[in-house]
Amino acid sequence: MNIRLIIKNLSIVICIEALCMLFPFLIALIYGQNDAMAFLLSALITFCAGLLMLTTKVKTNNFYTRDGFAVVALSWIFVSVFGSLPFLLSGTIPSPVNAFFETVSGFSTTGATILDNVETLPRGIIFWRSFTQWMGGMGVLVLTAAVLPSAGASFYHVLKAESPGPNPEKLVPKIGQTAKILYSIYIVLTSFLVILLLIAGMPLYDALVHAFATAGTGGFSSKTLSIGAYGSVFIDVIITVFMFLFGINFTLYYHTLKGNFRSFFKNEEFRFYIGLVFASIIAITLNLVLNGFYSFGEGLRHSAFQVNSIISTTGYSTTDFNLWPVFSKFILVMLMFIGPSAGSTGGSVKCIRFLLLFKIIKRELAKIIHPRVVHTVMIAGKAVDETTLWGTMAFFFIYIIIFVISSLIVALDGKDLISSVTAVITSIGNIGPGLGIIGPMGNYSGFSDLSKIVLSFCMIAGRLEIMPLLVLFSPAAWKRASI
Amino acid sequence: MNIRLIIKNLSIVICIEALCMLFPFLIALIYGQNDAMAFLLSALITFCAGLLMLTTKVKTNNFYTRDGFAVVALSWIFVSVFGSLPFLLSGTIPSPVNAFFETVSGFSTTGATILDNVETLPRGIIFWRSFTQWMGGMGVLVLTAAVLPSAGASFYHVLKAESPGPNPEKLVPKIGQTAKILYSIYIVLTSFLVILLLIAGMPLYDALVHAFATAGTGGFSSKTLSIGAYGSVFIDVIITVFMFLFGINFTLYYHTLKGNFRSFFKNEEFRFYIGLVFASIIAITLNLVLNGFYSFGEGLRHSAFQVNSIISTTGYSTTDFNLWPVFSKFILVMLMFIGPSAGSTGGSVKCIRFLLLFKIIKRELAKIIHPRVVHTVMIAGKAVDETTLWGTMAFFFIYIIIFVISSLIVALDGKDLISSVTAVITSIGNIGPGLGIIGPMGNYSGFSDLSKIVLSFCMIAGRLEIMPLLVLFSPAAWKRASI
Repeated sequence: MNIRLIIKNLSIVICIEALCMLFPFLIALIYGQNDAMAFLLSALITFCAGLLMLTTKVKTNNFYTRDGFAVVALSWIFVSVFGSLPFLLSGTIPSPVNAFFETVSGFSTTGATILDNVETLPRGIIFWRSFTQWMGGMGVLVLTAAVLPSAGASFYHVLKAESPGPNPEKLVPKIGQTAKILYSIYIVLTSFLVILLLIAGMPLYDALVHAFATAGTGGFSSKTLSIGAYGSVFIDVIITVFMFLFGINFTLYYHTLKGNFRSFFKNEEFRFYIGLVFASIIAITLNLVLNGFYSFGEGLRHSAFQVNSIISTTGYSTTDFNLWPVFSKFILVMLMFIGPSAGSTGGSVKCIRFLLLFKIIKRELAKIIHPRVVHTVMIAGKAVDETTLWGTMAFFFIYIIIFVISSLIVALDGKDLISSVTAVITSIGNIGPGLGIIGPMGNYSGFSDLSKIVLSFCMIAGRLEIMPLLVLFSPAAWKRASI
Repeated sequence: MNIRLIIKNLSIVICIEALCMLFPFLIALIYGQNDAMAFLLSALITFCAGLLMLTTKVKTNNFYTRDGFAVVALSWIFVSVFGSLPFLLSGTIPSPVNAFFETVSGFSTTGATILDNVETLPRGIIFWRSFTQWMGGMGVLVLTAAVLPSAGASFYHVLKAESPGPNPEKLVPKIGQTAKILYSIYIVLTSFLVILLLIAGMPLYDALVHAFATAGTGGFSSKTLSIGAYGSVFIDVIITVFMFLFGINFTLYYHTLKGNFRSFFKNEEFRFYIGLVFASIIAITLNLVLNGFYSFGEGLRHSAFQVNSIISTTGYSTTDFNLWPVFSKFILVMLMFIGPSAGSTGGSVKCIRFLLLFKIIKRELAKIIHPRVVHTVMIAGKAVDETTLWGTMAFFFIYIIIFVISSLIVALDGKDLISSVTAVITSIGNIGPGLGIIGPMGNYSGFSDLSKIVLSFCMIAGRLEIMPLLVLFSPAAWKRASI
């Protein structure tokens, strides 16, 4: 590990975070609320810390994959620590563990909260919560790469470690350029959403807060009742559609902009994603209607909203799905484990990995039936190499192992089994609400500090697709580290 | 597929089953109960069906892996259908779906029951339930191979498909001989258990019933309250130790008999298994004692019994663990997913597969940290080939996929989420009791016929480690089938 270069890379990320704190500072000034000072102070502390780290003298430029992974893992931990300063300094969340939990939940785009009455918070604080989700959605390091005049070649390892999915695609040869393109698409889509929400009658402030949290598939709201508080079909439909859109691989938007419209339906993962969304909506709607929960129209509205909210890992709600029949709840829990497309702003395992999985199973079956034929796994007509397949397999299992160990620790709190288990599923999948006491009407304040730290770890692990954290905590990676 | 040869192989298995029905017939005669006729009739029908199938003229002796898989899958289905005749003909279980469920639960060594008052059943029927678990434990096809004067080479594919674990070991070159050795060890261990239970004060009939069900890691009892009905520490300890013993790979007993005592502790899977058992017992005991459920001694007794009962996939109980704290219940559910060693009579995923999994994850981490080194997965100093690793991976995922799809169907019954989900976990893992309405004090009678059929499928799939059933239902396997 090249510790000095790691710190250098880290310092830039932290300085950029400090600058980002000026947006909520402005909001606080506009509304003349007392959280303005907290933001100014937080920005100053963060910036000074960043500057201090920037003074590190780099001795060698050797930078390997493991260093990239360490930068990413450390960046997310540091950004979350500094990002919790506004909550602490404004006194809105006095407990450091709670403030850290809420900030990690923001950057990781989870949307799990320990707050039980969001409406009482100052406007700047609510804005900051949603804004962290917007930054976290596309990635704080992608943001750094997009903002920097020239991101060095070493940054490729960093972006690879932060990007969701088994095989991130470089759109153009230059990394900085790729990051700029991605952020441009992101900004344009977010702006569209803001405009539509304004047309639907949302106030500008609410529209910004919800657009940021939707774009990052985070799910923080300025209302305790989430999107359900507006009771507007129009708003429900807009958010439903955009949750779906932000769950799509952004490279597909890029190809479409380049004139290749067909890329959408030629993409196997997109077909899987859209198929799963429609199948789930139909199954849940029928289950809800047949059990007398809603009329068909209402059932479709809530089902479509909730399915897209869960699979995109946003976590908004229009109703308390905790009360739905077991079949519907089971589908939602299943979708929590799947998640949207790779290369989107969503979390969880991602559709492409399940697609690979089914193909691997098919191959094993084929090996038994026709042992003498050579079998390859193909995606879009191209053979997938064994390295990618092994990486996918390993990811699945580490995901499940972290889920099991974390559930075990959270179970020590003595909450009911469903609440304990879905708290972990929804944290590692970056969704937000689960079932039981952490359902759409509940929150995470009832868990112990230990559980909150474990869940925070799950959120970061889920957002970074685990490997960067594992590398960071692996003693083998730190052998022969140079200072 | 060589359909004629498949039927021929099948016919022998069915004839042997018919002969096995004479044991409960004898029991019924001894006790002079009215189920004797039912057994005689069932044996006759089954034997005639077997003879009829035996007349099939085999045209070609081509027999591939896929044919072996088909024989195994079909054998288990047929054996379960014929095995349910005694329940139907005696009128103890009038519903065909219930009778099939109970028989599959027997042969697959699951031990899930739809009966709510076992004590009222005739003695022959209770004996038959346990005896099916004894046959199913080691395998009905292994039994066939052990009984046949000379099992053909084609039978190797059959045994491979029925044996639990990723890579079954042939003890001696001849398959029939291997089967005989395995059944001899099995009979000796079972006899030991019977004698110990007699010494502990159990009546002979009860000792036989419980020894058969323990040996097969099945868990059927002649008491509704299971082993708890005896309230004897001595019996609890004996059953605890033997549940553990039947969860060990039988080849280790063979090597020990051959004088190689050290093979036990040199075996990585055994170390994993025993380590997991001890860690779970300690964790649950502490959790129970600290939560004021029992004194330390009582806590240790129930914890040791339940951990061994669940991990060996037996499913006996001495107390209602449904009432235990969430942490303890979560550990039990975790153990349901793991199971004992490969090559034992237990079900579920098996320790060796988890061992391989951890090694695969370690390898992936090593690939990131040291990309230029070649990494192999080793077990007992030998490299594990990629084919075995892929098979293991695929098995895991099919296991999880069957679990998810089955849970979805069972959830349609509208039972609570925990009951629905653990019903599937415990069926596919061949355990028996789960949580909620199917806890140690409950039974499966509340589920719909559809759910019972799905759970029966899970039980067979779990016992056969899925692949044989998948091959049987795969259209690709039936292309170019010869009649």
